[in-house]
Amino acid sequence: MSLATARMVQMANAIRALSMDAVQAANSGHPGMPMGMADVATVLWSDYLKHDPAAPDWADRDRFVLSAGHGSMLIYSLLHLSGYAAPTMEDIRNFRQLGSPCAGHPENFLLDGVESTTGPLGQGLAMAVGMAIAERHLNAGFGDDIVDHRTWVIAGDGCLMEGINHEAIGLAGHLKLGRMNVLWDDNNITIDGTTDLSTSEDIKARYEATGWHVVSCDGHDFDDIRRALDEAMADERPSLVACKTVIGKGSPNKQGTSATHGAPLGDDEIAAVREALGWDAAPFEIPEQVLSDWRGTAERGSAARAEWRNRLEAHGDKAEFERRMAGDLPESFSLDTYIQSLIDEPQKVATRKASEMTLGEINANLPDTIGGSADLTGSNNTKAGGIGPFTADDRSGRYIYYGIREFGMAAAMNGMALHGGVIPYGGTFLVFTDYCRAAIRLSALQQARVVYVMTHDSIGLGEDGPTHQPIEHIQSLRMIPNLLVMRPADTVETAECWDIALREKDRPTVLALTRQGLPQLRTEAASENLSRRGAYRLKAAESPRRVILIATGSEVSLATECAAELEKAGIGADVVSMVCTQLFDEQDDAYKAELLPDVSPDETLRVSIEAGTTFGWDRYTMTNGLRIGIDRFGASAPAGDLFEKFGFTADAIVPQIMNKLNG
Amino acid sequence: MSLATARMVQMANAIRALSMDAVQAANSGHPGMPMGMADVATVLWSDYLKHDPAAPDWADRDRFVLSAGHGSMLIYSLLHLSGYAAPTMEDIRNFRQLGSPCAGHPENFLLDGVESTTGPLGQGLAMAVGMAIAERHLNAGFGDDIVDHRTWVIAGDGCLMEGINHEAIGLAGHLKLGRMNVLWDDNNITIDGTTDLSTSEDIKARYEATGWHVVSCDGHDFDDIRRALDEAMADERPSLVACKTVIGKGSPNKQGTSATHGAPLGDDEIAAVREALGWDAAPFEIPEQVLSDWRGTAERGSAARAEWRNRLEAHGDKAEFERRMAGDLPESFSLDTYIQSLIDEPQKVATRKASEMTLGEINANLPDTIGGSADLTGSNNTKAGGIGPFTADDRSGRYIYYGIREFGMAAAMNGMALHGGVIPYGGTFLVFTDYCRAAIRLSALQQARVVYVMTHDSIGLGEDGPTHQPIEHIQSLRMIPNLLVMRPADTVETAECWDIALREKDRPTVLALTRQGLPQLRTEAASENLSRRGAYRLKAAESPRRVILIATGSEVSLATECAAELEKAGIGADVVSMVCTQLFDEQDDAYKAELLPDVSPDETLRVSIEAGTTFGWDRYTMTNGLRIGIDRFGASAPAGDLFEKFGFTADAIVPQIMNKLNG
Repeated sequence: MSLATARMVQMANAIRALSMDAVQAANSGHPGMPMGMADVATVLWSDYLKHDPAAPDWADRDRFVLSAGHGSMLIYSLLHLSGYAAPTMEDIRNFRQLGSPCAGHPENFLLDGVESTTGPLGQGLAMAVGMAIAERHLNAGFGDDIVDHRTWVIAGDGCLMEGINHEAIGLAGHLKLGRMNVLWDDNNITIDGTTDLSTSEDIKARYEATGWHVVSCDGHDFDDIRRALDEAMADERPSLVACKTVIGKGSPNKQGTSATHGAPLGDDEIAAVREALGWDAAPFEIPEQVLSDWRGTAERGSAARAEWRNRLEAHGDKAEFERRMAGDLPESFSLDTYIQSLIDEPQKVATRKASEMTLGEINANLPDTIGGSADLTGSNNTKAGGIGPFTADDRSGRYIYYGIREFGMAAAMNGMALHGGVIPYGGTFLVFTDYCRAAIRLSALQQARVVYVMTHDSIGLGEDGPTHQPIEHIQSLRMIPNLLVMRPADTVETAECWDIALREKDRPTVLALTRQGLPQLRTEAASENLSRRGAYRLKAAESPRRVILIATGSEVSLATECAAELEKAGIGADVVSMVCTQLFDEQDDAYKAELLPDVSPDETLRVSIEAGTTFGWDRYTMTNGLRIGIDRFGASAPAGDLFEKFGFTADAIVPQIMNKLNG
Repeated sequence: MSLATARMVQMANAIRALSMDAVQAANSGHPGMPMGMADVATVLWSDYLKHDPAAPDWADRDRFVLSAGHGSMLIYSLLHLSGYAAPTMEDIRNFRQLGSPCAGHPENFLLDGVESTTGPLGQGLAMAVGMAIAERHLNAGFGDDIVDHRTWVIAGDGCLMEGINHEAIGLAGHLKLGRMNVLWDDNNITIDGTTDLSTSEDIKARYEATGWHVVSCDGHDFDDIRRALDEAMADERPSLVACKTVIGKGSPNKQGTSATHGAPLGDDEIAAVREALGWDAAPFEIPEQVLSDWRGTAERGSAARAEWRNRLEAHGDKAEFERRMAGDLPESFSLDTYIQSLIDEPQKVATRKASEMTLGEINANLPDTIGGSADLTGSNNTKAGGIGPFTADDRSGRYIYYGIREFGMAAAMNGMALHGGVIPYGGTFLVFTDYCRAAIRLSALQQARVVYVMTHDSIGLGEDGPTHQPIEHIQSLRMIPNLLVMRPADTVETAECWDIALREKDRPTVLALTRQGLPQLRTEAASENLSRRGAYRLKAAESPRRVILIATGSEVSLATECAAELEKAGIGADVVSMVCTQLFDEQDDAYKAELLPDVSPDETLRVSIEAGTTFGWDRYTMTNGLRIGIDRFGASAPAGDLFEKFGFTADAIVPQIMNKLNG
């Protein structure tokens, strides 16, 4: 039962007023979108969205994603008006100021109710695909009684132009994610002007071609909006709801133009809006009736949550469900026995294969994981442990054939992790982190537990050549804040890295794995996960120490070869396996000094060995150290030939060390 | 007039034989695609493609882009068979071996006739859009007599799944690039299996929705292929030619399956193919009649080129056309007078604005440039010098509204640069290099002169917050081989950087530019372009030198403030503007030592100041130096507040320097 239309109008106008006033106060921001979508959002949040402002973390809430994140005042208004504890009006008054949770773009780590960080266009929509996948998967596992919600997206023309939206809707259409509904703010305006400056596309036809249901409505007619949302909910396909809107609606002189998109309206025009809307409340004041109407919308969700709690209490899998949603691993989960078995029977395999072996253990014992690959399943070795495909017909499956959609995969994984209840991992070649880097960054910013299984991590991939050989990638990923980049050297380290990645609830991990086989270096039991410290001494100098070799992944075994040569010449050499620089940097000074003692370079030479750029390795070798790497594009040839060509042999490296020691 | 069908069959089988034999010899590669598309490619190269094997650089040749670059043996076969000087049969025999130009994926810098480096899927198609733009633009300038060619693309299912294809075809459809034809290898197979594992899309309907003409054919029926190509050429829209093919066609036991996609067929199956095709020539031998038929196809192009040469000789703009296609700037082109005018009247402006001012000069005096922005024209300040839009109706325009398509823009610019005759530049926010990083890497690998105008280059963008604030981006771009990253500090440096970028024929440039205003630091005439050396001493210490401040862009003026404070305390401080680390690294040792003398850190402290990650700055500060930067995500607030919060003030930096000097 809807509120009377006149009161609905005022509820929507409250969004308009807050948005224009906050943008004006900040003297920056985007009023046009919140004003244009105020009516649609009011209907959605009043009558459709299942949520309870008193319990933003309610597991069975609908997920709402503002993909057009620049319209952040829309969600801040909605959260405040509908009664969330934050943002307060003071927060809104401080929109875009230091310390306010009302940041320029919505940040999931600043406000409950902001399901995902958006702003980089298209990614919100693509994350929603992952949320909808997680919902259906958990529904398959736990049933309608406790998992039965929808994913709503507001997207703009920008979101629908970005390439990632093609990947996202292709996946959603194929998987028939019918509980996902995208409300398209169809306002014909982009920053540069009208959309016909840059596009002639029939968006509705494109969505239909991709397996979506499409319905249109007048985005300023409450009844028509309801009709369209009802239709969208009834269709078993994902739905695009094309909401025809006027950007900046309510602004008599600027609405319908790009002038409202990304700049304050100005005091005069704001006065004109107040006049036109009949809105006479002062800035940041909401008339009592309007606020009361808004707060009343919360009752629906509150009641629904109470019923849901009763169902959960009666549910046989309550504890397991709560564990899953809390993101904790089962107490029984451990890879220790598996790691011991590796130590007992050393083997030479590629770390991508070692990852597959580990995943066999993980997937068999941890129901939380959902794996996949961007069409490189057999190369990334991501399908393991007997998991079957997640499809339109079988939502219990735990493996996703993402297709050739790296960016869409990464964003979907972000959405799954943010939804909770699942731990997503997915693979492609390491070089193609370039295709999904913007989503990897959002994993890190959003503190999302996503595991990137990035194989073929150097020139060791061989014949495919420079387009497929990472050079700058490992280092460039190590620069992203809050992202763990791990490059294990053998089966044991690979298992250790997986264990760390799974237990890092608030950080994503990139596993850089080889195509080529590597000898097993860890053949003795350790009392702890040695990779956990980021770096450790794999081999201590036998002769008096003159050299510390710091290597990663496939180059650790090369470092041990170099060390053996050096020892033959009476030169003591430590070998340090630098599994994860970020974790090493977090160790205490004592541990760091123990591993990399701060002695004069004349006494101890530090040498880094990594088959990638030398850029940045000075940090560990010090200026006077030696850095073995590749500072040019690779080439096409068998891996062995390439390692030789680029000087990754003991024969090529040891003389350089000798020269440096003698120099 | 086509050759008799039976002989055409053998011509196509020659491609099949070379492809399967080369992959077998290399024991790696992708035979399925060349075998499946052999018939289509034979028709295209025999009867349609305008080219002359004797003159691969003929300006008016059709451009052929193998977007599905993993099928590289297709183009190597075509080049060899139709009579290009390279690859030789020996090169093909050494497919994927060190030193062979027949690399795993086609590399434009290894073979004439390979118009672009492909392999990273979707990008070939997107580069072709740029080639088609360049063609129409040059046609508008020089007329049908000398510019009148087509762009052909072979793309696979992978290319059409990647998000970038959506951006590319959206742009091509909108711009009505009717001389672009995409031949889709519609074989229903990806690496993981049949396409229905991951997609349910109606690709033809999607292309139609995006303004494309679509025609289908049986990709193994020469007449039907011709019919479809004729239709495609006749339509004024860009065309998708859906070629229904069988992957690995000719392999009796494996064709039609993913087994042929990315692995050698094996000796037994190769024997079976020979049997099935009636191909009894030994590996890497082509029967005389077949070779003669192939070589005969070159006559058509040879004659066309002779006629074209005659028309060019008679053309009034011959010299200008040849200059444009050679990529040389006019001898008269110089920014010296403009730079002098800047020095004469110092001003405080953002470097994005300084770039706009420079572009005013450039665009008015250099007809080669084609600018654009991914829907941030007013923010990137890319439209300058009175250039008008390039549209479906006006091909003379030199500004492209790319829409919200960063990746598509970057790839299109690569295509334009590779086509030649134009110098593309385009803008977005620096943080969104993450969206187009894969194309930026291909600019560098392909040695393409593309200028990326990347504005809002630090927390200085302010309120938009961490999703929009680059932290790791500048350093991560500096790692890409053959890419120049320039961060100018004022109007003069900005003009110098543009001048360098335009003259770098074989390297792309990223210009990192500020949103916020910067004081002019260069107020005296210099005898040379000081930025050309990558770094230079902006200010020499007045007191005895104890400190060298190394800063970039917006932080150079901050460094001068710090230096002034230090000098007050009697501490001499140089200020070095590090405009472009790559160019500085290329200077001779004497210059480097002059700027950054190799004295003990106890005597001279080096300090880097850049509002981004400190990662990698050790290279210039040395281990014992001081690195001022930001190693976390940014925040949403006005720029001034952020610089204060993150310690980018003289008040925050100078005490750190003092401590270090005294420590």
